[in-house]
Amino acid sequence: MNLRGVGVSPGIGHGPAYVLAVSVPEPPEGATYTGEADQEKERAMSALTQVAGELEARGNQAGGEAEDILKAQALMAEDPGLVVKVRSLIDRGLAAPRAVYEAFGKYRDVLAGAGGYLGERAADLDDIRDRVIALLYGMALPAAPTAPAEPYVLVARDLAPADTALLSREQVVGFVTEEGGPTSHTAIIARAMGVPAVVACPGATGIPQGVPVMADGTSGLVHVEPADVDVADAVGAHTARQATIFAARGPGRTADGRPIPLLANIGNPGELDDAVRAGAEGVGLYRTEFLFLGRAEPPSAEEQRRAYRAALDAFPGGRVIVRTLDSGADKPLEFLPGPAAEPNPALGERGLRRARRFPAVMEAQLGALAAMESERLAVMAPMVATPEEAGWFAEECRSRGLRDVGVMIEIPSAALRAADLISQVDFVSVGTNDLAQYAFAADRQLASMSALNDPWQPALLDLVAMTAAAASEAGRPCGICGEAAADPALACVLVGLGASTLSMGAAALPAVRAALAAHTTEQCDEAAEAARAQVTAAEAQAAARARLPGLATFG
Amino acid sequence: MNLRGVGVSPGIGHGPAYVLAVSVPEPPEGATYTGEADQEKERAMSALTQVAGELEARGNQAGGEAEDILKAQALMAEDPGLVVKVRSLIDRGLAAPRAVYEAFGKYRDVLAGAGGYLGERAADLDDIRDRVIALLYGMALPAAPTAPAEPYVLVARDLAPADTALLSREQVVGFVTEEGGPTSHTAIIARAMGVPAVVACPGATGIPQGVPVMADGTSGLVHVEPADVDVADAVGAHTARQATIFAARGPGRTADGRPIPLLANIGNPGELDDAVRAGAEGVGLYRTEFLFLGRAEPPSAEEQRRAYRAALDAFPGGRVIVRTLDSGADKPLEFLPGPAAEPNPALGERGLRRARRFPAVMEAQLGALAAMESERLAVMAPMVATPEEAGWFAEECRSRGLRDVGVMIEIPSAALRAADLISQVDFVSVGTNDLAQYAFAADRQLASMSALNDPWQPALLDLVAMTAAAASEAGRPCGICGEAAADPALACVLVGLGASTLSMGAAALPAVRAALAAHTTEQCDEAAEAARAQVTAAEAQAAARARLPGLATFG
Repeated sequence: MNLRGVGVSPGIGHGPAYVLAVSVPEPPEGATYTGEADQEKERAMSALTQVAGELEARGNQAGGEAEDILKAQALMAEDPGLVVKVRSLIDRGLAAPRAVYEAFGKYRDVLAGAGGYLGERAADLDDIRDRVIALLYGMALPAAPTAPAEPYVLVARDLAPADTALLSREQVVGFVTEEGGPTSHTAIIARAMGVPAVVACPGATGIPQGVPVMADGTSGLVHVEPADVDVADAVGAHTARQATIFAARGPGRTADGRPIPLLANIGNPGELDDAVRAGAEGVGLYRTEFLFLGRAEPPSAEEQRRAYRAALDAFPGGRVIVRTLDSGADKPLEFLPGPAAEPNPALGERGLRRARRFPAVMEAQLGALAAMESERLAVMAPMVATPEEAGWFAEECRSRGLRDVGVMIEIPSAALRAADLISQVDFVSVGTNDLAQYAFAADRQLASMSALNDPWQPALLDLVAMTAAAASEAGRPCGICGEAAADPALACVLVGLGASTLSMGAAALPAVRAALAAHTTEQCDEAAEAARAQVTAAEAQAAARARLPGLATFG
Repeated sequence: MNLRGVGVSPGIGHGPAYVLAVSVPEPPEGATYTGEADQEKERAMSALTQVAGELEARGNQAGGEAEDILKAQALMAEDPGLVVKVRSLIDRGLAAPRAVYEAFGKYRDVLAGAGGYLGERAADLDDIRDRVIALLYGMALPAAPTAPAEPYVLVARDLAPADTALLSREQVVGFVTEEGGPTSHTAIIARAMGVPAVVACPGATGIPQGVPVMADGTSGLVHVEPADVDVADAVGAHTARQATIFAARGPGRTADGRPIPLLANIGNPGELDDAVRAGAEGVGLYRTEFLFLGRAEPPSAEEQRRAYRAALDAFPGGRVIVRTLDSGADKPLEFLPGPAAEPNPALGERGLRRARRFPAVMEAQLGALAAMESERLAVMAPMVATPEEAGWFAEECRSRGLRDVGVMIEIPSAALRAADLISQVDFVSVGTNDLAQYAFAADRQLASMSALNDPWQPALLDLVAMTAAAASEAGRPCGICGEAAADPALACVLVGLGASTLSMGAAALPAVRAALAAHTTEQCDEAAEAARAQVTAAEAQAAARARLPGLATFG
């Protein structure tokens, strides 16, 4: 039996399926308890405390980014509002599991309704709720085994941070989830771990526990009980591909020697090492949300400078492009009055829009960046829609002495009017993830919208081409820093469309380097032209691949 | 003193300000009561019942659409969940006003977080809450006077349906609100009533009660205590303009005789009469949500046919373009499993996307449309992003015998790939409101985003031009059915960009007819070209107006 999903982290994952069943049952409506209310409350409180403690311990063990995420989740488990609610429901006669279920349900609906970053916290709440209820019922807490007899393919509806924090390549050889898309949490973690992953794969949790499966993170195919010969073939092909990929070394360039600097997308300083090891030539997108989100006070200038310094030091001689803070109703700052709950946070007051209303945070950030006095440091603004906004940002930067100023092109209007925008700045960088989301009016957080968010969609290629052409006309660089740059075939097409640099997660760099090295500028141009001449994303990909013969060995 | 807002319904509204103060105070946190809990609960219940009764009575008096809206609101006031919550808060010691405040607050946050259609219900809840609290405090319920000594200009932060349901042109000569945008509830109602309106006008509620004001619904200026001569001038100019406007008669055409059929946007059959009186030549956008929303069962085929027949009968010989149901997470259907709360309903599973997942409703609607057996009846789909979606819809229609099939162009990708889309259908119709919202990633419901949603934005004009060029190349019609078509100057520009028909609210038809009659095709072309050559919306408007001299007398 084969299942089909979307491959989001390349490679062949082969091993027994470990199906993470988060099927903690809903406690029956109106379930009551026998005995004293105080005892029942004690039972509930001790379960909440125990789950919080486990999450925190797991965070300590994992370290890094996972530690912060899990500690935040641990705090949620003991949120005073939730505790009061659980106690009051028990006072009204509900059994502890039902009281927990209802109290968490109310909070989850509010968060889920808020969407975006807060919406993701709703999934975290569900995870806590399930763990507490399982504990109260004496069920085993759902968890992926950390010391398996044999590495497994982890199969789930979706994965919570706690599910993956302690996993490594030694335990997990593949991820298969029913939910999620190319830019989902699972996809990003899998690529960071270098583990093959298939998401948006309907029916995956129907795979029987322990049955051998093979997940192909390139094609998106999931083979259940594959024949040995098929596994051998797939692994052989993948190994050959890897050999080709890692044969390419040095800076990014096409077969005819055109330099295409390959840069890294960085979410926090902990990711710099991997990027250096993967041979990145600098940082194409340094996200700075980690400095600001989830904090009661803004970071000091000194703390900011340390973070910028870390990137500059990691790439001596390399360029580091820092993106100013991108906050919004779905990523609120605790130290600023947030925008009210917005009906559509992705279309709301965020990024540069928010910086114009509350300029203090951006002013401080630009001040800290200017104080670095580094010619290798560039700065760019997120969420720019008009030339006027680009001009305002450039002026704010230049008046502080910053000399390499750009804007993200992630809104269709900015791509359509790229010539007007680029006349205001020194460079542009296309964010293909958000650009696709807006161009197709399709939320990239929704698995059901993944076909519209496919970066091979010809209309998206059109917008990239318009932007690159305007940049070329003005003699200024046009980088790409969306996930599209991480696809080796698409990377060649982007170069053909006129991209001058490509920036991506570290894990994708070797394959992209190899793909560029295997093709000439002319082949890239032809592939780009052929892709744009098609009507559907699948046709565009097929047409481009047909003109990129060098991919055959590893793409 | 002058204030500046956005003019959304043309004309001069002059009279004493009636400032609708919805400043019902927040009952103090922790406020308690003296006496028995049961008495306090009785007080709260009787206030809720009284407010519900008043809303219902007001609905009965208003009739039509307002009746449905107000009756729904009346039901909310007695929602069992709210009632239980209020009682339990009083049990915990809170005074009735505070208990009402907190109980409504919880529900409102959930709704506001959901956004869109549900988000608007949050404002309805606030309105009920304020009325109940006012009653409990013995304050006068806020309401605009229905029998004033003199017609007034109604000034408010924003207006609830209950505020406007019983008003007519005899009582209100102008609207001024601090919130809202060109496509807000207030703007739409004002245009339907033919009353001048200015929205997004900061400081408006600071106007002293009873002071004379003059609201210019064209320029967006609000003059407080204007000089008599200024009023006389403005009214004189407006009267002359009206005379010019209503001098134009007959079908839409440019000065050199090129026919541009002028059609009406219709939200329910009650609006057909006004459209006929305003000289519409048919229906360019027949929204069908009124048939489906807020109902426990889908409408019968017979009921649907009655609604379509009403439009065909209203325009003997005219074309009627019916848009299939546009529902989504913000406009859920009661008789279908809704999409779960989405983080961004505007970017979610809506319109045609929803119809593909749950085809029964669309199939029944297409069946009812096909049964009309009218060659004058056309059908088009909302929320189409790709040529493949357009092809699927066209096939669904044609297999049922429908012969005039189109799609809305309201997603940037559809405009970028208009040539591919139009090859699948017989016509396209550009929805400029949503197209602007997605092209600029700017929620049209947010007042703070109104500058980005300005239909004069050059990037929006680019998308319209691309669509019209592709349609012209294919020899197929390209209509415009967004609010952009209702602006006389912009209507000329849209014709210059290649629009073959314009559809708008009935009230806007005479001025658009006059504007077209005053300009040649060549002038329209030049205005369009000049507008697209600009960088900002304001420059585009100025450049176009400079090339449309015929507007001087009335634009």
